[in-house]
Order: sequence, then C-alpha cells, then structure tokens
Amino acid sequence: MFKATTLENGLENVHGFYCGATNAGLRPDKTQGDVAFIRSEVPCDISAVFTSNTFQAAPIKHFQKYPKDFQSNFVLINAKNANAMTGDKGVEDIDTILSVLHAKQDVLNPVMSSTGVIGYRLPVDKITSAFDALDFNTKDSDAAARAIMTTDSFKKELAYKVTLTDGTSFNIAAICKGAGMINPAMATMLCFIITDANIPKADMDNLLIDSTEDSFNRISVDGDTSTNDTVMLLANKTSGVYHKKAFADTLKKMMFELAMMILRDGEGANKLVAFEVKGAKTLEEAKKASMALSNSLLVKTALFGEDPNWGRIASTIGASGIACDDKTLTIHYDDLLIYSDDFRELDKEREAKAYAIMKQEAFKVTCDIGLGDASYTSYGCDLSYDYVKINAEYRT
Amino acid sequence: MFKATTLENGLENVHGFYCGATNAGLRPDKTQGDVAFIRSEVPCDISAVFTSNTFQAAPIKHFQKYPKDFQSNFVLINAKNANAMTGDKGVEDIDTILSVLHAKQDVLNPVMSSTGVIGYRLPVDKITSAFDALDFNTKDSDAAARAIMTTDSFKKELAYKVTLTDGTSFNIAAICKGAGMINPAMATMLCFIITDANIPKADMDNLLIDSTEDSFNRISVDGDTSTNDTVMLLANKTSGVYHKKAFADTLKKMMFELAMMILRDGEGANKLVAFEVKGAKTLEEAKKASMALSNSLLVKTALFGEDPNWGRIASTIGASGIACDDKTLTIHYDDLLIYSDDFRELDKEREAKAYAIMKQEAFKVTCDIGLGDASYTSYGCDLSYDYVKINAEYRT
Repeated sequence: MFKATTLENGLENVHGFYCGATNAGLRPDKTQGDVAFIRSEVPCDISAVFTSNTFQAAPIKHFQKYPKDFQSNFVLINAKNANAMTGDKGVEDIDTILSVLHAKQDVLNPVMSSTGVIGYRLPVDKITSAFDALDFNTKDSDAAARAIMTTDSFKKELAYKVTLTDGTSFNIAAICKGAGMINPAMATMLCFIITDANIPKADMDNLLIDSTEDSFNRISVDGDTSTNDTVMLLANKTSGVYHKKAFADTLKKMMFELAMMILRDGEGANKLVAFEVKGAKTLEEAKKASMALSNSLLVKTALFGEDPNWGRIASTIGASGIACDDKTLTIHYDDLLIYSDDFRELDKEREAKAYAIMKQEAFKVTCDIGLGDASYTSYGCDLSYDYVKINAEYRT
Repeated sequence: MFKATTLENGLENVHGFYCGATNAGLRPDKTQGDVAFIRSEVPCDISAVFTSNTFQAAPIKHFQKYPKDFQSNFVLINAKNANAMTGDKGVEDIDTILSVLHAKQDVLNPVMSSTGVIGYRLPVDKITSAFDALDFNTKDSDAAARAIMTTDSFKKELAYKVTLTDGTSFNIAAICKGAGMINPAMATMLCFIITDANIPKADMDNLLIDSTEDSFNRISVDGDTSTNDTVMLLANKTSGVYHKKAFADTLKKMMFELAMMILRDGEGANKLVAFEVKGAKTLEEAKKASMALSNSLLVKTALFGEDPNWGRIASTIGASGIACDDKTLTIHYDDLLIYSDDFRELDKEREAKAYAIMKQEAFKVTCDIGLGDASYTSYGCDLSYDYVKINAEYRT
C-alpha cells in the first residue's frame, strides 16, 4: 500500500530538477515564455514515446541519434515553431543551438522538443540568445508550463508525492501541452514527466508505453496525429526510493488526468464524453468502434447541439465495420437506456432525461454490442464553431 | 463514336418513365414534396449499390428480400425519416405501404427508399394517404428531385441524350440528393438513374459499380457513411438502342457530375478541392493518403481559412501511414510548387500566389510521393462554421 498526495507547483517538487522559461521573441506576447528548460543536477535515464507520423519532426530525429539508453540532464523546449518538415537542416539547427548551450552550461546529451507551425526553420539566433536570459538554477514550473502552450487555453501541470508504508517517499511531476490535432495528438501534444524515484530503466520504458496507451492514446479532439508528439520521462533517482506498483499506479493516474486536461481544453470544446464500447467480439473491434465514435464529426456536432438522438451513435458503430447487430445492441447515456431492440423510439420523457444528461460538462455513452466480452473506452469532445475558428485562423 | 447532349427537365426525358411528388405532411414546408415516385410503363431491370454500413436501413433490407435479378416498375421515395434502426417493424411498415399502393396502382415488385432521421418508425398513414394526391401518369422531375432533398440547398438532376453514329439514340437521366455525412454518404446520399437504353443486366451491374467507385466513392464531406446510401439504376429498354462504351462513358460522366454537385452542396462548404496523390508505391496507398487528405479536419479548416501553409497537408500524409519520404515528396496547389526538398519555406511571393489559388471556388492539391507509379484522386471540401451549425441543429 502507498499514498499519493497531490502537490502544488508542478515540476518544482521533484528533487534535483530545475526548470524555467523566457520569452525569446518567438511569441509576440512578451508576458508568456516561448523557450523553456528542464534540467537535472545529475544525469537522468530517459524514456520517450514519439508520434507514429512518418514525418517525425527534427527534434525527434535528433533524439534518436543518441545511443540507446543514453543519459541526459537537459531538455530544451520551444513553442511557435515545430521544426518539422525542415529536412537535415532542421536537425543541424538543433546541433547549433545545443552547442551554444554547451558553451554556457555544463550539459550532458541535451535533448530538444518543439511545437508550433510546420515547415519553417527554427529562429536559431533568437533561441540561443535566450540562454542569457535563463537562470538554469531556478525552479519555475509555472513559467515552463505556460511557455510550451500553443492553442491551449490553460497551463497543464501536475505533481504527486508518493509515500510508501515505511514512510519513505518519491515525487513525480509533469507539464504538458495540447489542445487540438489530438489523436493522440497534433498541433502537437508534448508531455514531460520527471521523477526522483529510483526506478530501473526497463520499468521506465514499459510503464511509459502502458500509461500512454491508457491515457493520451485514448483521447481524440480531431483525429489527427502530429509530426511532433512526444511523451518523455526523466528519472534522476535522487530519492533512492522506488516501489513498482506505487509508481505505475501514480504515473497512470497522472497521465490520465493530463489527457483529460487536454481533452477539456480541446479546441473549442465544451463537453468531455467517454465512449465505452463493450460486449464486442474482440478488443480490436471494441477499440475500432470506440475510436470511430470519438472521431465522428456527426457525433461531435450532435454533442455540441445537445441532440439526444442516438441515430448517429448507432450509425457510426455500423459504419465502423465491426460485427454488430441492431437486435443485440443497447445504448446508454450515463445510466439512461436510450436504445435497445424493444425500445427504439425516444418518447418525450426519455428525451427530456437524455437532454438533461447531455447538458452536463461530462457524461458517458455506453454501447453494448451484445456479441462478446471485449470492451474499450476512448474519450472525445464536441465540435463547436470555435474549433473551426481556431483552426481556420491558426497560422495568422 | 457518339454524342452526348445535356437536356433540361431531368427524368422527364427518358421514354416510358413517369415521376412526381407530393407533400404528405412529413415536411413542414408544404411548398416542397416529401414523397416522390418514379414509375415505368414496362418492367425494368434494376441494379443497385447500397451502403457499406452494417446497419442497413429497412428499405435496403426490403429490396434484398426480392429474388436476384427481379424486375420492377416502381420506386417510392420519402424524405424526413430514414426508416433506419427500426428493426423488423421498419420492413413490415414498407410492406404495409406497398400493399396499399398495390390497391391503387398496378405495380410490379415496387421498391422503396428513404432519407432523414434515424430511429423513428415511418408515418405509414401519412405516406399512404399521399397516394390519393399523386398522379402516377405525370412527369414532374423537378418535384421529384426537390422532394428527396434533406439538408441539400439545391436540387440535383441531370439528363443526357446519347446519339450514336447511325442516328439512333437513347436517354439517361438521374436525380440525387446528399449534402452531408458523405463518404460515400450519410444523412444519406440517394441517387436514382433511369434509362431507356437497351442495356443488358450484366452491364448494368458492372457499370454501376465502376461508376460509383469513380464518383460517389471518391467524395467526402465528413467521412461518415449512412445507413441508407443507395445508388439505383433502372432500365426499361424502350429505345431498343444500346452501345456499351457510349452508355458507360455517359453514365460515368453523369455520376461524376452528380458527385461534384453533392460536394459543392456539402453542408456549409464553399470550396471544392481535388486531392491527387501520385507517385505512391501502390494504388491502395495512394487512395489511403488521398482519402486522409479529403477527410482531415485540419486540412478542411485550413481550406476554410484559406491558409496556404502546406504543413497540414504533409503532416496528414505522414499520419496516414503510407510509405513516404520528405526528401522525395512534392506538393503543388494547381500548378504552383509549394513544397519540395529544396524548397521548404514559403517566401512571400509564393505565399501570395498560393493564397490567390486558395481563394478560388475549386482547385487541386497534388502530392507526388516520389516512390512509385500509383495515383488516386479524391474530392473534398472545406469545413466552415455552417457545417457545425447545420449538424448541431439538424434534428431540431
């Protein structure tokens, strides 16, 4: 048994880590940073999960040039420019930036991460000149969390102190960004997790993959996958304390909460909806139907319109191509039965109840296929006028 | 060689066919019909392509109860109610309606087609009472084309007279509807094609499948596939004239034009964009990338915002999972090179040119993957505030 306690001030709680940000002129609003760093006193093991997009951005290519299981003590992050589709020059720009960093600060295998517009070279001089304004011995999680935002409307940071039964403890904290192009992510989803737990590298790798599958890979704002998506875990082990289940449960909980923050901040979104598909023949089919629901434009606009008609839900399941049968299918909104073979038409009373459920900021749609035992839940949001506005005007 | 001439007044041009519509009280606006018919003096061969949605609507199940290669002389169509997800009762309702029709009019194996909201039983009495108001010997293509509309903003009808070198001729005409949920279609795409050509049944089947693949299956408004999608071809052969290539070419041309009409009428859409993917390793990959582009929310909102940034185009190709390489990829907007390995950043001059291209009502995006010989073109549209409005408020 263990106890996980939430802490204020995000990354600042993890022993031996420093963080901060400055405005290097990439973002017009000077009150918000655009270049952030996370630094550890001692070398860290790093695990990372990157985008499945074939066109991986330059920072990801640069990361992968390091030898397997390399250690690092420094992450540099910039907003407003994704350094994606920039070719070999994009990777060279990172080398240039990091060599300037080397001259200012004793860093080991520094890594970089970027988010913003695709197709433009990084403003190398602006970023390197920011090093003079950065205090690498500060702890300012708020500034770092705010500097990595793009279309995000709020910063995303979390921290947990995990106390074991013997009274020892370790900390785990994260900042992340993402609001659109989420599937798991685009316009990019970035997440940086740091810990002082004494976690073995093999556990880092496995738990990060598992928790990503159960968090960021289950949310969809718009079904697109970015060139830059990155989830990174750095462990400096300075607490000397570790407990696998305590770490795994807390990491999973934290990453799920961050994923829900991204979804709540989904561009223009007002509602968070869980789409549980159960009773499917296989897990693959349950996942396929669940993701089809969280990605469907027609379902998303019906959510925005608070239209209780289940027709678009059923039709989307039918269009997903999974084995299904309208005689075995049932659909619930929260606990309200909204469709079954015996109960196909919405009467006024149930329609009123359904409408009340849909007015909520968050609710659950459960579709029981009735043909098997497999289930999967994904999480989506509505599609509003503001999504169109944000994405029509993004670059301007 | 042959000559295909466009004709006014749609279905009215095809010998031996009658058509019309009335308002049976399904649609509040009494100036527009909601029940339409197409009737032939003599029995017709029928070919049909139906939705790939597992939950096929009741009219499709009813159609499939007839023996293979049945003949029919009557199609009844209603709007405002899809008769989908209505179970066995939905099929029984069609039997009831058609048995009343039998009592009023000598019909052979009549078929029905429906479009509208999913999940409600047909108003059987309203529809059967409409038979008194319908003159089955009239020819009113305009009324029929308008009666089958749902969110369509304009009626869709076309007719061609095909004249062969020996001076003989046949006619082919169609009405169709569809504006949203198009992939090939939902909120339903319906198309009824009639001809007096003396076409063999085998040619009807093959040519209808081919032409559907090259027309309705290449357009996407929102990536959803309806429970009711239907493309139907009726041939009464009364002209006694047939020429396979002349028929095939004209059918393909007509169906492509109808598909473009649907796309131009795409809910809230202002732009029609052809997405050609060429140089792919396989046809399957070219199709996958092309359809990913016409379905991407981020591409669609960028089109609406007239944002010439090619980043979302490239990222969508990368996310589609096909073999691709940023060094061999090129992207053109019409004839303007917008991305290549040597030419990654948009300068002001090219950005201005790209912007001018995107201001057009229709243009082409060509992505050459540079790895093979396969190509595929699909057609999409932009996503505007009005799409959200139409679909948020659809049922109310």
